[in-house]
Amino acid sequence: MFVERIKTEGLAQLSYLIGDGSEAAVIDPRRDCEVYAQMARERGCRITHIFETHRNEDLVSGAPILATMTGASVHHGPNAAGTVVYADIVCEGDQFAIGNLCLKVLETPGHTDDSLSFAIYDGGYGDGAVGVFTGDALFVGDVGRTDFYPERAEEVAGKLYDSLQKIVALGDQTNLYPAHGAGSVCGNKMADRDFSTIGYERHNNPMLQFDRREAFIQAKLEEHHNQPPYFHVMERINLVGAAPASPLLTPRVLDIPSFDGVAGRAVLVDVRGISAFLGAHVPGSLALPVGMIAAFAGWYLDEHEELILIADSATQAEAAARNLTRIGYDHLLGYLNTAMPGWAAAGRPFRSVPVIDAQEVKTRIGNKRENWVLLDVRDRGEISEGIIKGAETIYVGKLPEQLDRLAKDRNYTVMCASGARATIAASVLLRAGFHNVDVFLGSMGAWRAAGGEVVEPS
Amino acid sequence: MFVERIKTEGLAQLSYLIGDGSEAAVIDPRRDCEVYAQMARERGCRITHIFETHRNEDLVSGAPILATMTGASVHHGPNAAGTVVYADIVCEGDQFAIGNLCLKVLETPGHTDDSLSFAIYDGGYGDGAVGVFTGDALFVGDVGRTDFYPERAEEVAGKLYDSLQKIVALGDQTNLYPAHGAGSVCGNKMADRDFSTIGYERHNNPMLQFDRREAFIQAKLEEHHNQPPYFHVMERINLVGAAPASPLLTPRVLDIPSFDGVAGRAVLVDVRGISAFLGAHVPGSLALPVGMIAAFAGWYLDEHEELILIADSATQAEAAARNLTRIGYDHLLGYLNTAMPGWAAAGRPFRSVPVIDAQEVKTRIGNKRENWVLLDVRDRGEISEGIIKGAETIYVGKLPEQLDRLAKDRNYTVMCASGARATIAASVLLRAGFHNVDVFLGSMGAWRAAGGEVVEPS
Amino acid sequence: MFVERIKTEGLAQLSYLIGDGSEAAVIDPRRDCEVYAQMARERGCRITHIFETHRNEDLVSGAPILATMTGASVHHGPNAAGTVVYADIVCEGDQFAIGNLCLKVLETPGHTDDSLSFAIYDGGYGDGAVGVFTGDALFVGDVGRTDFYPERAEEVAGKLYDSLQKIVALGDQTNLYPAHGAGSVCGNKMADRDFSTIGYERHNNPMLQFDRREAFIQAKLEEHHNQPPYFHVMERINLVGAAPASPLLTPRVLDIPSFDGVAGRAVLVDVRGISAFLGAHVPGSLALPVGMIAAFAGWYLDEHEELILIADSATQAEAAARNLTRIGYDHLLGYLNTAMPGWAAAGRPFRSVPVIDAQEVKTRIGNKRENWVLLDVRDRGEISEGIIKGAETIYVGKLPEQLDRLAKDRNYTVMCASGARATIAASVLLRAGFHNVDVFLGSMGAWRAAGGEVVEPS
Amino acid sequence: MFVERIKTEGLAQLSYLIGDGSEAAVIDPRRDCEVYAQMARERGCRITHIFETHRNEDLVSGAPILATMTGASVHHGPNAAGTVVYADIVCEGDQFAIGNLCLKVLETPGHTDDSLSFAIYDGGYGDGAVGVFTGDALFVGDVGRTDFYPERAEEVAGKLYDSLQKIVALGDQTNLYPAHGAGSVCGNKMADRDFSTIGYERHNNPMLQFDRREAFIQAKLEEHHNQPPYFHVMERINLVGAAPASPLLTPRVLDIPSFDGVAGRAVLVDVRGISAFLGAHVPGSLALPVGMIAAFAGWYLDEHEELILIADSATQAEAAARNLTRIGYDHLLGYLNTAMPGWAAAGRPFRSVPVIDAQEVKTRIGNKRENWVLLDVRDRGEISEGIIKGAETIYVGKLPEQLDRLAKDRNYTVMCASGARATIAASVLLRAGFHNVDVFLGSMGAWRAAGGEVVEPS
Repeated sequence: MFVERIKTEGLAQLSYLIGDGSEAAVIDPRRDCEVYAQMARERGCRITHIFETHRNEDLVSGAPILATMTGASVHHGPNAAGTVVYADIVCEGDQFAIGNLCLKVLETPGHTDDSLSFAIYDGGYGDGAVGVFTGDALFVGDVGRTDFYPERAEEVAGKLYDSLQKIVALGDQTNLYPAHGAGSVCGNKMADRDFSTIGYERHNNPMLQFDRREAFIQAKLEEHHNQPPYFHVMERINLVGAAPASPLLTPRVLDIPSFDGVAGRAVLVDVRGISAFLGAHVPGSLALPVGMIAAFAGWYLDEHEELILIADSATQAEAAARNLTRIGYDHLLGYLNTAMPGWAAAGRPFRSVPVIDAQEVKTRIGNKRENWVLLDVRDRGEISEGIIKGAETIYVGKLPEQLDRLAKDRNYTVMCASGARATIAASVLLRAGFHNVDVFLGSMGAWRAAGGEVVEPS
Repeated sequence: MFVERIKTEGLAQLSYLIGDGSEAAVIDPRRDCEVYAQMARERGCRITHIFETHRNEDLVSGAPILATMTGASVHHGPNAAGTVVYADIVCEGDQFAIGNLCLKVLETPGHTDDSLSFAIYDGGYGDGAVGVFTGDALFVGDVGRTDFYPERAEEVAGKLYDSLQKIVALGDQTNLYPAHGAGSVCGNKMADRDFSTIGYERHNNPMLQFDRREAFIQAKLEEHHNQPPYFHVMERINLVGAAPASPLLTPRVLDIPSFDGVAGRAVLVDVRGISAFLGAHVPGSLALPVGMIAAFAGWYLDEHEELILIADSATQAEAAARNLTRIGYDHLLGYLNTAMPGWAAAGRPFRSVPVIDAQEVKTRIGNKRENWVLLDVRDRGEISEGIIKGAETIYVGKLPEQLDRLAKDRNYTVMCASGARATIAASVLLRAGFHNVDVFLGSMGAWRAAGGEVVEPS
Repeated sequence: MFVERIKTEGLAQLSYLIGDGSEAAVIDPRRDCEVYAQMARERGCRITHIFETHRNEDLVSGAPILATMTGASVHHGPNAAGTVVYADIVCEGDQFAIGNLCLKVLETPGHTDDSLSFAIYDGGYGDGAVGVFTGDALFVGDVGRTDFYPERAEEVAGKLYDSLQKIVALGDQTNLYPAHGAGSVCGNKMADRDFSTIGYERHNNPMLQFDRREAFIQAKLEEHHNQPPYFHVMERINLVGAAPASPLLTPRVLDIPSFDGVAGRAVLVDVRGISAFLGAHVPGSLALPVGMIAAFAGWYLDEHEELILIADSATQAEAAARNLTRIGYDHLLGYLNTAMPGWAAAGRPFRSVPVIDAQEVKTRIGNKRENWVLLDVRDRGEISEGIIKGAETIYVGKLPEQLDRLAKDRNYTVMCASGARATIAASVLLRAGFHNVDVFLGSMGAWRAAGGEVVEPS
Repeated sequence: MFVERIKTEGLAQLSYLIGDGSEAAVIDPRRDCEVYAQMARERGCRITHIFETHRNEDLVSGAPILATMTGASVHHGPNAAGTVVYADIVCEGDQFAIGNLCLKVLETPGHTDDSLSFAIYDGGYGDGAVGVFTGDALFVGDVGRTDFYPERAEEVAGKLYDSLQKIVALGDQTNLYPAHGAGSVCGNKMADRDFSTIGYERHNNPMLQFDRREAFIQAKLEEHHNQPPYFHVMERINLVGAAPASPLLTPRVLDIPSFDGVAGRAVLVDVRGISAFLGAHVPGSLALPVGMIAAFAGWYLDEHEELILIADSATQAEAAARNLTRIGYDHLLGYLNTAMPGWAAAGRPFRSVPVIDAQEVKTRIGNKRENWVLLDVRDRGEISEGIIKGAETIYVGKLPEQLDRLAKDRNYTVMCASGARATIAASVLLRAGFHNVDVFLGSMGAWRAAGGEVVEPS
């Protein structure tokens, strides 16, 4: 009997291959799902069942694709929002045998109405649950967000409280297998640890320390989470099932003439590192380093837009394409395979973004530099812990919709926690026609290290 | 914070890479230890510590090799049998920081005098142990064997009992990380499950259900385990530290003329599958299918002997060499790369082993066939559950030393549970000059399926 | 500018990725064609063209599949047998630019009417052809077979002669890139060398030494080649284009109960090695070791039949499935993952095939053993070089259609050159209800090594 | 019979695995030589011989290392400069059998005194050479440089002429296998084609078109090549044989505190891309993008210096370490695993390099900007084809020794052909304490594309 965790970086999503003997099942497969089939094959297993803990809003489900590939059946909870057309509905208490492993369904609504957990038992050995797949109900060090039904906020927070009691009742000995790890947009304060048990969480998870249901609900109501616009796209796609990702995830190579042929109609997405974008980039491109695609692409890109990547290598382009495909961006025209000196040497225009350090920021503040704005693009939670005096704040993801709060004749220095999101924000401004933009590299980290003063946001 | 399990098939040995941030540690590395360095590298970690739960008797430790490779320090418990020259001695309560992970030493003697367990804590999050590495003290569904100090059998069984109490006291929430999984020769009745917790074991492990220390000791005294002769070789090597395994584990290719040049001085080891050996093999070769090397090579091969493999492919030869190197067999002259029809077509002699089925065994018993012996080579535990009436029993591993109980002018049909060990045994007999040997394919499994009668051994 | 050769073992088929700068083309892609896309990607190229030297009769073309995958155009010669629906027709003198590489079309009929060769030139450097892709017109050490239009045998042999003059006229400096290497069923006597030039062939290829066209034609008319029945299937498929091979080439794992559910309706194909089949196999299975599938499956299996593989491992099953898919066998129900002792131990019937050596054959001949037939299944060319006196001869591939020449109440010893094809033949006989069948392992090789007498076939 | 080419990127070095049957040989192995052993293994061959075409001056030979690994013998030409201690001396006409492949030695001095070529013949098939390994005597489109014995320049150029006649005499049909491809520092004007024949070169290689020996000598005397200082280190090492490269090529991970502990004593080498260095880098680091290490590290780094890499990923650090180890840099303390925003966010200083475009250069020239120098770091051959008026020229490799030609109180804009070498040069200036340095990105390429005027260098 085995449980294998498949971690999808970027999304910080966790899916699982479980099995016993020659049978296996998958929990919450992602869209590029060959990995599960391959792992099952190496263990000499066939995949017979696929379980979904809930209809995902932050990634494209691979369940219908893996089902076609393997012949497995898909199982999903009852969803008031509509029928998940590729799945069978399962309910509290339903049981499935995968070899000697017995999987039992627990209805654990709260994060979504259709949220399920799956407890597993060793049919050949002993009593009690050996593990539980909790989806977005219970994480290591946190619980799921409950902000998807704003009009029913209190109700669903309460449902989650009840669901957690059900999960905890499985016993301290139960291994915990959640659907996300640290770094996900689906929970607030997960612990950076890959493993836990119900017992460990019962003692240590702050969200399991509430004696009173009302106190838990109150705490949930006070949380703030961002909802990128693509969440609704994912929800729609995951009702009907997405098409398989292309087997060839590396986008087509574009040399400069080929690039010219298609660049006009597409969004240019620069997936190189932050430094490389700052150093020199193709004018008009959006900075989205490959590791930040999962968290930020959904704020800037429309699912129907055609995209061209700018990447350092085929490997990087493939990683970017994989990240994009996992959240439903399929219209990649190719990637420009010409590194920056070559692009410039071909007579093409390029742009760089000046960077400044904490000392320069201090100087500018001290000088009361005119017409200059320090723009802090961190999120609400970070802002609440303090800002540099005088900074304006707009969350990096909301910049496109709040551009009218800014003026093109002013000079902007963009900052975040380190300079990474600030660089994305700078690229958004440059694309929107702003000209005087630089980046405070090191940002709040460097500011604090330099002993800079931090004030409460107004 | 992560724990990665590295399972070494054949030995069913479990080692672990654990870490946090950019630091990592390894628990019980095997001899071919590049895997740990590679995994650490992929996680962006450097290995700073190596911990051994005890001086292994069933495999060559990779600790001194990995230490040289990475610069890490090695930590071992106090060993009355001698100094582990490559390690620092650690004791109850010693603590080590690996990033935010805190590892605490528990002395848990019993399996060996120097047995340690290592409890780990999340320094950044909560109280209580998140996991424990128990070596050969506590397994999933079983506990370690205590037969290595026969003159102190009662004492060491008692020590193990005490050690287990110490481990269980870490709490139900603690993940369990033992040094072996199902299939190992180091425990008797492990559960075939890859994961567990102290809580699950406390409730379900039969060896943790004894109220009284004396009852536990009595149960341990009644166990029987085999001790292949190579155990003492491992113990000796693991005090001083083995040399690294060759970076090129595939043995040299031998075509027939090259084979002829060296075959005379070496033991021929046929690592192909059971069926292939039965169908046709090079006369004089020992049957040791690659998956059975870990468990059986130690009964037949001397560490100083030169070996030639007979394999179907370079891949199979490499797997065999890897298995051999893990238990200290380093003198591989090469592998014969000529498949069986080619060998025969070159005019070379070959041999096959006739196979018979349950019906034929019944017929022979019914006919009271003369001068015929049904030789059952299963182990004491299996034999105790019943044999075919009239069968003689010698454990497959002990066949070389008990050949004088057999006579070359008799006809032998060898059996075991399935026919696999019987084929090894048949090859031992053929190598020893026995001529009339066949194999009962399916053996006790087929016999029971055919409704054959089983009697108590005399 | 590069040429990369992709060798498909089993078929001994050679395909090529060629390119320059960021463009690439493929010559004669096989069905499982991800390999070309992957290689192009690693070189930072996109595939813009696919060229076929002729409509293949011995494998399924991957051209239409790769075209869909990459957007490349497919180019094929004019085919009197029908329209290759997925391709553009190209003719003598057509030219294509792939970066600085210039490819020119030569019509080189003979092997087939639509045979093309493709000469390549370095557009950026010098004159004269740097290489030529000759398909099945010219091989290393041989030329293509011309037996596909029996009614026009003389005409097409003459055409090939003329085509060869055209190829040779490219000059001695031209690298030779044929569509098959040694081991293919498409040529008779290829040299076992992976590389050659027109100059080397002009001097050394026996088929280029004919002064007179008539002598060449005569030599071709005297050749004999086997035509497995699946050739016509390939020809039909390659006019319309095959579906892509499954991305998951490993067939479904079948444990024994699953196997029972489907075994009745399928052909069992044992893809393990020769020795393993001889040692023990599932009754009724056809012996087709994975390395012999390409050459022999087409004689025994119908494209519409459902197949179950019997394999030692998932890796072996995948290799077998890949070989089968390349020649159009797509209906794999799965593979039995139970090794032979386990199968027998589950109470299932098994069968083995006795093997005999040269001495035993001599003895049987000397004894004039009654009712005994030595059946030699080698091909016409091998038979013509001598047989063991008294042997009956039926080519292994034609055994199914000539079973009426044999009698079930006789005893058969099957032989070939080594025993490999003899084992396939033995399995065919056993499947057909013959009971007394053994194999002369080593066969003619062992016979000659033992100094056995060889006579002319009658 | 096969020839496999192993291309070592960066060095553009070509080595070869050749073989037949179960034997193989390697020509000119590089230091990280597991690749040859692995490839031989996959072909079922053992490596019996290693041949060196000459004592390499541009990389560390792997011959003695591979010999130890495999037991093969090493063969080298007679070397007046000293004894190659790990090799047997071979001379004109010596022959070696590798299966049916016959290798014959040709002495072909000129590039070096000990230069050999190796002609290969198919012992089983036909006459005449099938290929020739020419080392640094004959390349595709060029011949070897003859500037290593300046006092004997005419003599060795003449020797090379004679050697080329000997090679050409092997016949047009002979495949050409040189030791370097396009991009190497060992030839001047190689064609960018991976394959050729003696016939093609005889017709098209400009250096084979000289009727008169004297004209060839004159042409060679007029060539100019750069000799990085590390060439003499390689020559010294390759007489005695280098130690094996570390099996773990990824350097130790350094987080910021670990970095601080060792940074003081080491050279910081930034192996990220050009753009990334320009965007933000650790002050004091040398820019050496991983793809430029082979060509440029030898100008700046001493073999005894300790190095710390700054890399984007473990993969990049490993590639850099591999490139460094191939040219004898073994003292890597580790790599900093903190990407640029993180480094800055930790409060560490960073630096960026401004970039300017052709328009800005034009403006500055037009304005006669004061105290401003346009510094062109291209090589002599490039400079001779024209420069921007007023530019000063120092070859990028010679910058460290010619720093006294520059003044710290002046403003430098560095250029090359594209901006890549200019960035290296900028980093050299910054490390030397120059403060006012920017880079003309696009450099001469952009200048020409923008229609900028080019003048003859003074």
